[in-house]
Amino acid sequence: MIKAAVLEAPGLPLKVKELPKPSLEPGAVWLETIYSEVCGTDVHLFHGRLAGVPYPIIPGHINVGRIAETNGSVRDVDGNILNPGDVVTFMDVHETCHNCWFCLVAKTSTRCPSRKVYGITYGVKDGILGGWSEYIYLKPNVKIIKLPETIRPEAFIGAGCGLPTAFHAIEQASIRLGDTVVVQGSGPVGLNAVILAQLAGALKVIVVGGPAHRLAVAAEFGADAVIDIETMSREERIDKVRELTNGRGADVVIEATGVPGAVPEGMAMARDAGMYVIVGQYTDNGETAVNPHQAINKKHLAIKGTWGIDLSHFYRSVQVMAKYSRRFAWEKMISRHYGLHEINQAIADVEKQTVMKAVIKPKL
Amino acid sequence: MIKAAVLEAPGLPLKVKELPKPSLEPGAVWLETIYSEVCGTDVHLFHGRLAGVPYPIIPGHINVGRIAETNGSVRDVDGNILNPGDVVTFMDVHETCHNCWFCLVAKTSTRCPSRKVYGITYGVKDGILGGWSEYIYLKPNVKIIKLPETIRPEAFIGAGCGLPTAFHAIEQASIRLGDTVVVQGSGPVGLNAVILAQLAGALKVIVVGGPAHRLAVAAEFGADAVIDIETMSREERIDKVRELTNGRGADVVIEATGVPGAVPEGMAMARDAGMYVIVGQYTDNGETAVNPHQAINKKHLAIKGTWGIDLSHFYRSVQVMAKYSRRFAWEKMISRHYGLHEINQAIADVEKQTVMKAVIKPKL
Amino acid sequence: MIKAAVLEAPGLPLKVKELPKPSLEPGAVWLETIYSEVCGTDVHLFHGRLAGVPYPIIPGHINVGRIAETNGSVRDVDGNILNPGDVVTFMDVHETCHNCWFCLVAKTSTRCPSRKVYGITYGVKDGILGGWSEYIYLKPNVKIIKLPETIRPEAFIGAGCGLPTAFHAIEQASIRLGDTVVVQGSGPVGLNAVILAQLAGALKVIVVGGPAHRLAVAAEFGADAVIDIETMSREERIDKVRELTNGRGADVVIEATGVPGAVPEGMAMARDAGMYVIVGQYTDNGETAVNPHQAINKKHLAIKGTWGIDLSHFYRSVQVMAKYSRRFAWEKMISRHYGLHEINQAIADVEKQTVMKAVIKPKL
Amino acid sequence: MIKAAVLEAPGLPLKVKELPKPSLEPGAVWLETIYSEVCGTDVHLFHGRLAGVPYPIIPGHINVGRIAETNGSVRDVDGNILNPGDVVTFMDVHETCHNCWFCLVAKTSTRCPSRKVYGITYGVKDGILGGWSEYIYLKPNVKIIKLPETIRPEAFIGAGCGLPTAFHAIEQASIRLGDTVVVQGSGPVGLNAVILAQLAGALKVIVVGGPAHRLAVAAEFGADAVIDIETMSREERIDKVRELTNGRGADVVIEATGVPGAVPEGMAMARDAGMYVIVGQYTDNGETAVNPHQAINKKHLAIKGTWGIDLSHFYRSVQVMAKYSRRFAWEKMISRHYGLHEINQAIADVEKQTVMKAVIKPKL
Repeated sequence: MIKAAVLEAPGLPLKVKELPKPSLEPGAVWLETIYSEVCGTDVHLFHGRLAGVPYPIIPGHINVGRIAETNGSVRDVDGNILNPGDVVTFMDVHETCHNCWFCLVAKTSTRCPSRKVYGITYGVKDGILGGWSEYIYLKPNVKIIKLPETIRPEAFIGAGCGLPTAFHAIEQASIRLGDTVVVQGSGPVGLNAVILAQLAGALKVIVVGGPAHRLAVAAEFGADAVIDIETMSREERIDKVRELTNGRGADVVIEATGVPGAVPEGMAMARDAGMYVIVGQYTDNGETAVNPHQAINKKHLAIKGTWGIDLSHFYRSVQVMAKYSRRFAWEKMISRHYGLHEINQAIADVEKQTVMKAVIKPKL
Repeated sequence: MIKAAVLEAPGLPLKVKELPKPSLEPGAVWLETIYSEVCGTDVHLFHGRLAGVPYPIIPGHINVGRIAETNGSVRDVDGNILNPGDVVTFMDVHETCHNCWFCLVAKTSTRCPSRKVYGITYGVKDGILGGWSEYIYLKPNVKIIKLPETIRPEAFIGAGCGLPTAFHAIEQASIRLGDTVVVQGSGPVGLNAVILAQLAGALKVIVVGGPAHRLAVAAEFGADAVIDIETMSREERIDKVRELTNGRGADVVIEATGVPGAVPEGMAMARDAGMYVIVGQYTDNGETAVNPHQAINKKHLAIKGTWGIDLSHFYRSVQVMAKYSRRFAWEKMISRHYGLHEINQAIADVEKQTVMKAVIKPKL
Repeated sequence: MIKAAVLEAPGLPLKVKELPKPSLEPGAVWLETIYSEVCGTDVHLFHGRLAGVPYPIIPGHINVGRIAETNGSVRDVDGNILNPGDVVTFMDVHETCHNCWFCLVAKTSTRCPSRKVYGITYGVKDGILGGWSEYIYLKPNVKIIKLPETIRPEAFIGAGCGLPTAFHAIEQASIRLGDTVVVQGSGPVGLNAVILAQLAGALKVIVVGGPAHRLAVAAEFGADAVIDIETMSREERIDKVRELTNGRGADVVIEATGVPGAVPEGMAMARDAGMYVIVGQYTDNGETAVNPHQAINKKHLAIKGTWGIDLSHFYRSVQVMAKYSRRFAWEKMISRHYGLHEINQAIADVEKQTVMKAVIKPKL
Repeated sequence: MIKAAVLEAPGLPLKVKELPKPSLEPGAVWLETIYSEVCGTDVHLFHGRLAGVPYPIIPGHINVGRIAETNGSVRDVDGNILNPGDVVTFMDVHETCHNCWFCLVAKTSTRCPSRKVYGITYGVKDGILGGWSEYIYLKPNVKIIKLPETIRPEAFIGAGCGLPTAFHAIEQASIRLGDTVVVQGSGPVGLNAVILAQLAGALKVIVVGGPAHRLAVAAEFGADAVIDIETMSREERIDKVRELTNGRGADVVIEATGVPGAVPEGMAMARDAGMYVIVGQYTDNGETAVNPHQAINKKHLAIKGTWGIDLSHFYRSVQVMAKYSRRFAWEKMISRHYGLHEINQAIADVEKQTVMKAVIKPKL
């Protein structure tokens, strides 16, 4: 039997249940969970704000664990054979079909209709397919990556899903060496964007966010300037960005807030002919007023909406961590570890933002 | 003395005045106007809706004429020496500095602060620098293009500024061979976008516009389907686009309407991971409500605002006309010719949209 | 039993054999061959010039046929259920893994090591997996496309594998509306490149090739100028291209010859800062001398090697034919139909270039 | 009178001459030279290997100096008014016309036929337009950049023309965050490419070059691995690169050697569907044998030739130095300072490669 935290329906407290442990089909893997992330998506999941979730589910989409058992020879993305005891992570997105128009003609697998996500769009009826559990069942062909030795599991889960999400946003941003980048938002996606923008060539990174302790982390992670939304008005923030950019605005602005009103503000922070990447609007929080003449047309602005990730973002995020795990202390983003039995507390803490990052440690 | 139509101040009727004809500085040219366009921009100009206009001015930014006199040897962009009698056009944008950050580092000369435009941001105090005049003074280094023999002056002015404006939009759209393109708007920019989208590789072009006689021209210009905004509701129009695109929406949508509300509608017409180009929001007509989650983020949409043109768009537009002047009868877009003395009537007709395109013929 | 032409080993004449017809696995299809192409690749195959070919094989990689039988409900790429009698084609490339680094991180499925090709890298031991046969076995997940009614099977096979191959080359070329394009080679890939270059925005297409009857077809397909390699020297050809391009050279040059010496010649035909796409060097014909200073560095040239195709090229090629089957008479490229028993004659004729395109019609 | 080193004709020893100091035209500047670089180009210049050089000339194209005098108010690219005593550099390329087809339609100002270069294509007859001189005459509109305080003049001249040249190459390389990059060559361009590749997102940088002391500098500048051409054969070098890249080859290879034979070697070091940037073939050193099938077509390789720089590369190079002058000790590349009277020794030392970088200090 396996202990797992189950969300029966939106709004109900999660319960730790004992579920039977099925045997592995060929090519499948049992992963013993070391850490599983609790992120903002899980708060949305808890409240029933995401479409297509087959409750009851075991949440937990970003995970790091130890190989417990494989059925047959299973390899990771680099072709390494996986052995019990190996510390690995795996990509939550699965079943992208590689057969449909979006996968093959548009080459945008993030919009594949068959796409499933561990901890989000798989239910308990599908198996033990979420990380808030002692063990996770990795189906055949799940994309597994053996963690390089330079990556501590704590650092990996500290980076969490914010790192590959920010990676995708940074890729869309097409940063040129020498650019000035504004990051709107100082949550996990925003802070990872601060790191990746520097690594991708930005010479100046400005963070617009709050509260103050998150901005302090942003500065530790290399932000050249921070703008506190709790102490400056919208107009003052825009003026400050202009002041820091020779009056022109930033070459690139990355939105990582989830607040619709941040969108027109971010457009105003970009320079003429600049780039605006919207990654934070992950759930529907309603409309915002945009002046298309001032904000887009006259400004000659390019805008990119960024949805989900594909394996390249996940794989390269791991590579980035392997190289820069000393320069950036991702584990500092973890505020507290929670046992499975403390899961409802963890969700409440993330929702109230009293923690930066909550991590589930089933063995706690 | 030269007769020219002068707009003294916003809202005042234009008057035909006799202005002294100065002598040419070295490298300058007197161009005898054959045709000058009256476009939507001139209506905005008449009402004082554009910033930075130094009234009184002589409007008329897109022109075709005959070389009357040059001071010294003057060449066109291709290096041809220009002789009296040559039929030419010239690029209205001038004085782009090639010295500033936007010109040299951002390489976006359309946002150069020194940029001036014939017929819009030059005033009478600067000279006879607009086309609603018997002659136009071409300053040294104005970019002149000798019209190839296959281009009839009527066809050139029929295409008007809509052609290079649409060229820039099409360039931003990065159409791939095989794409389906929706064009919002059936005015001069929209109709030219219909033509250019086909030439750039679109296999299906859908026009959303009106009234019916403009949609008939769109069909003559090769549109595969037209959607009449006078007979279909917003939801019906979006549904129709989906029906015509295997339920997915268009690969590329080009906005050429000037109406803010067209922007969220166009976003809804694009497929996931599609492209939206906004070219029609040339003046400030206010805000519109956008849902950044539904319309941009989840949709993985790319958006490009497009401002003005640079010489490459103007030059290549002339090349396109030279090749395709038989396939596309641009002169059909001209509803009526007006003499200089009929200029106020021309502006009124354009504003009321009783004409598709009004053309000034000073010698009428 | 099924009659099929089998190539036992390189250099041996093919023999028509009767092979047992296995039953279909779930999701598989029996396709009754209408036409199968004999292309230059098959000549290489016959001579044993390709690596990794598991002789004995049934050649024939581009095919059009009629659905004879399906095991279960099988759909095409657009989601249409396939019924007996439907006229379809299918993509020869199969088993691209979507699991490896090339598929998922580099996103270059054409370099996937698991990739297999019907008629080339499948052998008789793998099944009836080539088109020189009365029937073809389509394995589960083979990408099938139902031919639109506007595409005649004769036109489809006339276009042959040259069309999607040229499509990939044109995509790499990033043609801008208004470009001048030189196509080196007037074989099937070259002639399809002539067509697609126009559709993708080229205003002038120049073909360098021979013999004269192929250049005549190039002109019928819209080439603006042809340069005959049988009557002009290398230097004369380069000079002629410069003469046709204002002395600058072409914006884009596409190599479709298979002759190594064409590569430095094509580089010399491109303008400074132009684009050179190499698609014709499909087999190893040795080295050629290149001056990297003159030909690449000083010229600021961009070069793209193009290998194979992915589904997007195949799918969009079908869409292009559906739209333009009246404008371009692809079936004119077919010189002669051959029955299965005439297959050795067909290969000989293609090798001697006495035919432009040989087509196998098993029922002849 | 101004002392300057004059190269009368190819091969003749330079002589220090006293030249009259003309008065400034409006907008011009007298710059007191602090340092001027002696680079590989100057060796070519000395031997007469470059085309279009109007001997006699004053060489010295990359310079840093102190404003001595301006005629009127002169501004730098950022709009700062320049005052006597300001430490500045300026872009050697001048007179790019912004009027021709290459500047305006192809938007490749590096191929503008009017382009002139200080110290290379200006002669003594044109003025004191080279840096091996006590003072340099900056013509009106020469692009001047005031050095930020964080940039020591020694560091700036240590980086020299290798930095913006490498910047252009890195821009062409389109490095993605996470790429592995091979740099061929460990001279000034190669070493700067090592620095910039890391800043642009490379996670692993491998240098192929020599001799050992240069490779030691490469390692100090952050190279993850070095391959010594003096101790390893061509095949061993290629094998080593594959060994360091999971057997695939590098994502990006940058050629900075000047040796034609390095080109096919570099192609072999790139992975399938990788990128090869050729920047080092600045003079004509003859041909090399390339197998277009193996090296380009089958490999699906993209290749970019890179010529010269434009202002964006120069400007952004200064920004990079301002940010990273502590992380990278560019001044370490300087082996020795030479007075004007030692100029022939400096050229000989650079040619023999007994120095990494020779710097002229006129006041020495």
